[in-house]
Amino acid sequence: MSRTVEVTELVLRDGHQSLLATRMALEDMVPACEDIDQAGYWSVECWGGATYDACIRFLNEDPWERLRTFRKLMPNSRLQMLLRGQNLLGYRHYEDSVVERFVDKSAENGMDVFRVFDALNDIRNLRQALKAVVRTGKHAEGTICYTTSPLHTIDRFVELAQQLRDLGCQSICIKDMAALLRPQPAYDLVKGIKEKCGQDTVVHVHVHSTTGVTLVSLMKAIEAGADIVDTSISSLSLGSGHNPTEALVEMLEGTGYTTRLDKARLLKIKEHFGKIRPRYAEFESKYIGVETEIFDSQIPGGMISNMESQLKQQGAADRIKDVLTEVPNVRKDAGYPPLVTPSSQIVGTQAVFNVLMGRYKALTGEFADLMLGYYGETIGPRDPAVMEAAAKHAKKEAITGRPADLLKPEWEELRGAALALKGCNGSDEDVLTHAMFPQVAPTFFAQRANGPKNLSKKPEAAKPAPAAGAGKPTDGKGPVQQRVTYQVKIGDKSHQVTVEPA
Amino acid sequence: MSRTVEVTELVLRDGHQSLLATRMALEDMVPACEDIDQAGYWSVECWGGATYDACIRFLNEDPWERLRTFRKLMPNSRLQMLLRGQNLLGYRHYEDSVVERFVDKSAENGMDVFRVFDALNDIRNLRQALKAVVRTGKHAEGTICYTTSPLHTIDRFVELAQQLRDLGCQSICIKDMAALLRPQPAYDLVKGIKEKCGQDTVVHVHVHSTTGVTLVSLMKAIEAGADIVDTSISSLSLGSGHNPTEALVEMLEGTGYTTRLDKARLLKIKEHFGKIRPRYAEFESKYIGVETEIFDSQIPGGMISNMESQLKQQGAADRIKDVLTEVPNVRKDAGYPPLVTPSSQIVGTQAVFNVLMGRYKALTGEFADLMLGYYGETIGPRDPAVMEAAAKHAKKEAITGRPADLLKPEWEELRGAALALKGCNGSDEDVLTHAMFPQVAPTFFAQRANGPKNLSKKPEAAKPAPAAGAGKPTDGKGPVQQRVTYQVKIGDKSHQVTVEPA
Repeated sequence: MSRTVEVTELVLRDGHQSLLATRMALEDMVPACEDIDQAGYWSVECWGGATYDACIRFLNEDPWERLRTFRKLMPNSRLQMLLRGQNLLGYRHYEDSVVERFVDKSAENGMDVFRVFDALNDIRNLRQALKAVVRTGKHAEGTICYTTSPLHTIDRFVELAQQLRDLGCQSICIKDMAALLRPQPAYDLVKGIKEKCGQDTVVHVHVHSTTGVTLVSLMKAIEAGADIVDTSISSLSLGSGHNPTEALVEMLEGTGYTTRLDKARLLKIKEHFGKIRPRYAEFESKYIGVETEIFDSQIPGGMISNMESQLKQQGAADRIKDVLTEVPNVRKDAGYPPLVTPSSQIVGTQAVFNVLMGRYKALTGEFADLMLGYYGETIGPRDPAVMEAAAKHAKKEAITGRPADLLKPEWEELRGAALALKGCNGSDEDVLTHAMFPQVAPTFFAQRANGPKNLSKKPEAAKPAPAAGAGKPTDGKGPVQQRVTYQVKIGDKSHQVTVEPA
Repeated sequence: MSRTVEVTELVLRDGHQSLLATRMALEDMVPACEDIDQAGYWSVECWGGATYDACIRFLNEDPWERLRTFRKLMPNSRLQMLLRGQNLLGYRHYEDSVVERFVDKSAENGMDVFRVFDALNDIRNLRQALKAVVRTGKHAEGTICYTTSPLHTIDRFVELAQQLRDLGCQSICIKDMAALLRPQPAYDLVKGIKEKCGQDTVVHVHVHSTTGVTLVSLMKAIEAGADIVDTSISSLSLGSGHNPTEALVEMLEGTGYTTRLDKARLLKIKEHFGKIRPRYAEFESKYIGVETEIFDSQIPGGMISNMESQLKQQGAADRIKDVLTEVPNVRKDAGYPPLVTPSSQIVGTQAVFNVLMGRYKALTGEFADLMLGYYGETIGPRDPAVMEAAAKHAKKEAITGRPADLLKPEWEELRGAALALKGCNGSDEDVLTHAMFPQVAPTFFAQRANGPKNLSKKPEAAKPAPAAGAGKPTDGKGPVQQRVTYQVKIGDKSHQVTVEPA
């Protein structure tokens, strides 16, 4: 009755993203690649929105070149990426043909497994990307963003899993970005999916470790039949990161479940990143302990530091408790979105505004869009009065259709815009870089020839690159994915507000 | 089918002992006592060998006064201590009447629960202390030191549990000081004890978190029927410490198991120690990550740093791998003792000697004593050739009886010695302090009137107190319990070697 549990190693993407603000340079990963390739992982997560962003914003690294390097150095491994559905790796919806091109190019450059998610769990935002992956013959993994609310039941999640299966997904990911997945629901959810979608449905479980309970959740998920679990090598684990790979291996000893992992290789990988990590000390997450308050507040650590920073700027740091109380209200008014990028920032900023200026007296453009359906459908109904205020502020109507259906074919226009930039090499990859990060790509293209920067080696080299122009967001030290620029309308006046960690 | 799981809070003893080298001053604990008292714990561990030692060695605090303060501030709580059987809180065996006096005085000053252990699991070293506790009417908890070896089977541990029950213990503790207790043996062991000793046998599980798997072990222990588990508040948890109390509470949500703990109180306790901890930064354990290598090497983190320090002093830092390979050999030759203070230091130092000077060419006096039975019986047979060498070096024969049976009544002599010291107040408590820490007590008695020192507040105040005389071990910064002085005989010459962390 022994069963093999497969493992995805996260250290090359979510591990350093969660603990070192995504700043790790490729050259600090290269020496570990052979051991990772030979250790016996099911897949190696190594690419996603924040790593792509950090490559061009901070590291002067071509993210496509990084991908090709991984492909070359890990010939025996499935490379895995995290894809934000219709948003790709950017912050807006893209028209379907752009989504297709991105998937094609990623597959061509070596990607094997596409984990596709949508912050609102709106399946319409996942369909096009998943279809594209299926067409390339690569592994399409449909994702459930796990959260808790009065409306988020095991049955609803299981129903979503069935819809993802119907789209042709080869596996279903339960993505617990805020470490809210306790052991019992982990068990119930995996069991529910297996029962509803068939025992042969591959269930892949991704949990963070912020609340300290999720290694137990992995145990329970495995007992319920989970096939693959995500961990990060111990020297880049825990806190707002993930459970340690080695601990998973040891946990299973004697239980009848085993991994295929080679402990000697794991030790070498551990030692490598243990040596590298201290060089990135200035980028360390503040959240290296255990934060069970998240269960009650629903507010991930990164989101709290964002809100604290906003309050401080307004000289209202003492209002943080009011804001923490307001967040669940705003979330309820918005139909209980999961709190994950970008919904976490949108809801958090609106909570700050509500506390400082009165409830919904000022709205961010993004919050208005969320209320009006421009990010997609939420699980619960949205508050009609707030929707009305949003429509008035944004001067547009609510929609119920798929947001991307509003978009016209845009590839040629995106291509033209990219090709006009100094340093653009004319490839589809460059066009995609510019399409997803229009504010950052021009500088990157212009400077690319200077080669990669490693921010770790000397303290003085770790200073942020100078801003290229007034419109460009300044370089913060926080995780890339936490910086969002809002258009804020107060009465008739529009303000641009950039939110980033302190 | 809901069942209440009881919890022992460790932060006032093992929590700061494992993470802050036992340096926390009473005044930094006092503000948390009301919340701890009201939070709903089964017991509060707050006293033991290292805290006692640190009080008189570093903090100029009377440990008995600390105990009385806890008693006063936590009137609703069971206070719990860790007692080294016949060693009490010291490093040698004491004659039975001294053991009885210590237990009586501890009970009188407010102790409720006595967790009694022996490093070799030799029940003869536990009997007297447990009998004394039973006589006082306080709670006697018999302890199994958990370890792994070819001889340590679930059945052997269960047999030991039965023997402890037969001595009148009200509960059985499984003490996993090195975080070696994986989930499956945790389940099997608790289940085995319940089946053999009766379902009403109270099983209390103590695990450290060093290997990262033991919160899962607690889950499994609870599923098997464990009644009480040990945790430490999250802001002083993990690494070489323990699993976070709040994570335990959250882990159980929805499982049918619950604790009686008040989450609002836990948050206040967490915040308090979160504020205090950074002030003790210089005493922080190096082991704040996850170390699964311990499973293979059997060598706890603190022991590795000891051996590294010894090798460095000999200019042989590059031999550490040889030493790590030698430790399991020495352990086998010594009959597989659990590696816990003092056996971990004794075995580790001998492994260093074996590597540097040839196998058993030089022996420490303590290692000879261990081989000759002067610490008690080991689970396995000891190597006859090494025993012979030990007898030759130590110029004494092996014994098979209970070590304390060799001792003559010593209370009056101990009393006389203590009373002769300047500053001794003539109480039995002072006599016990001197009996257990004869090298430290004279200075403490002489300086006691100056009042407690808090090593945390200013960096310059954190310097170690000056040594009182040539024979006194120097004050290191490592955990108190890791410093051991050895008499080393090489040929005919005797050397005194003090081992402490780097």
